[in-house]
Amino acid sequence: MASAFLLLLITIPAALSHSILQFPHVSDYDRKLRADDNIYCDSWRFSVETNDAGSWDSIPSRCVAFVQDYMTGDRYASDSAIVSNFSLAFGQGVKLGGDGKDSWVFDIDETLLSNLPYYQEHGFGAVTFDEVSFDKWVDLAEAPAIPASLSLYKGLQRLGFKIFLLTGRSEFQRNATVNNLVYSGYSDWERLLLRGPSDKGTLATEYKSKKRAELINEGFRIHGSSGDQWSDLLGFAVARRSFKLPNPMYYIA
Amino acid sequence: MASAFLLLLITIPAALSHSILQFPHVSDYDRKLRADDNIYCDSWRFSVETNDAGSWDSIPSRCVAFVQDYMTGDRYASDSAIVSNFSLAFGQGVKLGGDGKDSWVFDIDETLLSNLPYYQEHGFGAVTFDEVSFDKWVDLAEAPAIPASLSLYKGLQRLGFKIFLLTGRSEFQRNATVNNLVYSGYSDWERLLLRGPSDKGTLATEYKSKKRAELINEGFRIHGSSGDQWSDLLGFAVARRSFKLPNPMYYIA
Repeated sequence: MASAFLLLLITIPAALSHSILQFPHVSDYDRKLRADDNIYCDSWRFSVETNDAGSWDSIPSRCVAFVQDYMTGDRYASDSAIVSNFSLAFGQGVKLGGDGKDSWVFDIDETLLSNLPYYQEHGFGAVTFDEVSFDKWVDLAEAPAIPASLSLYKGLQRLGFKIFLLTGRSEFQRNATVNNLVYSGYSDWERLLLRGPSDKGTLATEYKSKKRAELINEGFRIHGSSGDQWSDLLGFAVARRSFKLPNPMYYIA
Repeated sequence: MASAFLLLLITIPAALSHSILQFPHVSDYDRKLRADDNIYCDSWRFSVETNDAGSWDSIPSRCVAFVQDYMTGDRYASDSAIVSNFSLAFGQGVKLGGDGKDSWVFDIDETLLSNLPYYQEHGFGAVTFDEVSFDKWVDLAEAPAIPASLSLYKGLQRLGFKIFLLTGRSEFQRNATVNNLVYSGYSDWERLLLRGPSDKGTLATEYKSKKRAELINEGFRIHGSSGDQWSDLLGFAVARRSFKLPNPMYYIA
């Protein structure tokens, strides 16, 4: 105890100087967060992508320009590309069983397909989600593939993975979804799982966990899972590795 | 089927135009990732903070300047501040039981205390972790508090949460750790949990899950958990809400 006390005395001046050198006061950062949209919105994006923000309805109004720049400039495509690269590298390291049971689960919206053309017309997530107009957009079946995801998808197929598509879209959207997927370059998935009548009102995390559990019960080994929402990836019956794609536009619980 | 086919035909031109407008080819982005350190390193940071990168030993050598800028400029402090704000907002919404069992778990390094002065001398994570020199640094007990975390810590105490400190540091570092915590402004925690002899060789995720499970067995409700590593937050006996603090300097499995 005496030596601990001595150590405390000795270390105070050094620690104090570091403390002052390294960090301004919290209130200074609160002021900066308030004042500088770019710093604020970049931190907001950090909190969203790590799930620290929890549930949210729409992007902060001061971040519309930031999210627009992020989504339409280099950064979104670059972030998507690096996630795809890490995913494929993991897939390449998996020793497949040769029994057709090695599988990968993909979400669809903002994972395989991009709804950016829709969100460009709807404030990049600054407007609260409108199911009617979004369903119309889905019916158009015009969503382009996210190039890095299409590349990953094909790479995993070449490696021999069975692909399951697990989406929050509903059964009534099956045709439009298939058309859109095929058109934008996706093919030969094992199964497309959409929300049926019994899944209505279930939160995404639970619905997707249940569906993954059913696959596992069928004997499939879910090595990887790709999704832009944490509700695609968390819960139970999770994949060995989960890959979070970027999406600062909306949140699904 | 006929209508699906018709829909496919109708939607091709529009989807094609979107596809071309929105995204360049994957190979273009691979080239860009290779060419532009800032874009690459920002995407690398995304992959690290979301855990997409999985296990890694040291930061890419081309990202040393990027990580240095991030850690010593506004962004690290800003990211830390927003996480603290979201954490406190969640804490404020918790209805406490009044039985002294409502609790919050904090990791220590890069969560309550910053080892930035050490990492400034060790390439900001570009050099593989050296236990000997890091243990010497810990013995100095000079690590400053991360201001936003100190503010959160005190805020949670004011709300009535019991604070548990759960660290990968070892029992032999207890004195230095206590001295450092007290010096940098932390006090009145409920318990400081360090790795004992039986925890040696256990991965952090398992070690920390076990310790949280013991707390839950004692009747504590773990509402929140704060850590800079996913191994602080994932596993079993997880908190109701987990808060990932930024750390692009090192990874602990």
